[in-house]
Amino acid sequence: MSPDATAAILLIGNELLSGKVDDENARFLIRELRALGVSLRRIEVVPDVPEEITDSVRALSPRFDAVFTSGGVGPTHDDVTLHAVAAAFSMDIVRHPDLEAMLRRGYGDRLRERDLRMADIPSGARLEYGRAGAAGVAASPGSVWPVIVVRNVWVLPGVPSIFRRKFENVRELFRAAPIHGRALYSAAGEGSIADALDEAVAAFPGVDIGSYPHLDAPDYRVKVTLDGRDAARVNDALAWLAAKLGAAVVRTD
Amino acid sequence: MSPDATAAILLIGNELLSGKVDDENARFLIRELRALGVSLRRIEVVPDVPEEITDSVRALSPRFDAVFTSGGVGPTHDDVTLHAVAAAFSMDIVRHPDLEAMLRRGYGDRLRERDLRMADIPSGARLEYGRAGAAGVAASPGSVWPVIVVRNVWVLPGVPSIFRRKFENVRELFRAAPIHGRALYSAAGEGSIADALDEAVAAFPGVDIGSYPHLDAPDYRVKVTLDGRDAARVNDALAWLAAKLGAAVVRTD
Repeated sequence: MSPDATAAILLIGNELLSGKVDDENARFLIRELRALGVSLRRIEVVPDVPEEITDSVRALSPRFDAVFTSGGVGPTHDDVTLHAVAAAFSMDIVRHPDLEAMLRRGYGDRLRERDLRMADIPSGARLEYGRAGAAGVAASPGSVWPVIVVRNVWVLPGVPSIFRRKFENVRELFRAAPIHGRALYSAAGEGSIADALDEAVAAFPGVDIGSYPHLDAPDYRVKVTLDGRDAARVNDALAWLAAKLGAAVVRTD
Repeated sequence: MSPDATAAILLIGNELLSGKVDDENARFLIRELRALGVSLRRIEVVPDVPEEITDSVRALSPRFDAVFTSGGVGPTHDDVTLHAVAAAFSMDIVRHPDLEAMLRRGYGDRLRERDLRMADIPSGARLEYGRAGAAGVAASPGSVWPVIVVRNVWVLPGVPSIFRRKFENVRELFRAAPIHGRALYSAAGEGSIADALDEAVAAFPGVDIGSYPHLDAPDYRVKVTLDGRDAARVNDALAWLAAKLGAAVVRTD
């Protein structure tokens, strides 16, 4: 990944929109991407409708360095993600021999013709086995089910435990420059500090400044966050803002 | 709302994408909309960037009966939602006299010129005070801060406790026909029941059938859900599927 890599997440599944299942995968991936230094710029949640998925993939892929999809990759009628990703890039669906071999080995006599559909992937897809496992050794092709990658779209499964395991296999491929975050807690409300925040935003380009009122906090009213890839610059912005706000500053961290 | 009303949610805020704040508002609204019978079709999470918000509003508004935005409506530099919504509909921003009067009353001598910006809303917006409170009495204009509605876009604040209170004020405006949900738990895996699910999907249009593997469940492997606005039809589909799957059915609910 480039040092200032960007990403989007596309969650696929009616169950997320109907409230039957609480999202766990975006919640996990948001934190992982932040720790890796990848700037997550957009999340979309769409139903199991091929056209919706195709439209989202087509819109997101050119805008961000990486797009992670979650869900819709099993053997049932609502598992439409790979066909929809293929359509987004005008690719055919082809049966991949390595995946077919793994399925035949794994299922043995229990294999149904239908199960082989899981080996059907976009013609331009590649299989990503991960750079290195916990022991620093890359998984060998055929030993684990790979992540299917189509251009910059990483197709991950919806079941949270498998989603996490698959992402962990490929995580190190996404390490970018770290994002440094600081915070300042203000006893004065947002209206009182808004002018100072405007000045800080103008004076420190490259530092992303956020302002979040907390109604229930014991000793402050607003948390101001400062983030950027240049740690010295973030620290300078914090010091500048702390001096400007003076007695309103409860603490910084 | 029409009996088969649809909705989308647009969450606005860098803090959601950086993982500084866990979303609570979509999580709340997903359940509320389901209980009201409104079919939620899409969620987008975008940063505090006016063009991103404008593009999303412009794309979502014509596709769904209602669009709910969350965040970006305070007095600071990152509060850009109302200007972005105005831009989506090519409206100007105007100072609304009712809102200005409320701010002047509320702040009294402490009012800063800047605070009046919160009275600046799209020229085509209307103020919605809610149909009826818990006591069945509508809030009177001027007594509470209203929800700002621009065409079918409902602009709600990001602070979760206020988001909930505001939505509860207008909730009854969105009541649609109820969605009936049933479920079937299968001891057989997804691959084994996929053909039967295909047949059920074909035989029962109007019934939305979902299939969700549960790796850690004690006595089943797949939860199949059946949803629709016609309760009899949903029950028929469940009975048909249970007969088809026979001994694989652990239970239904």
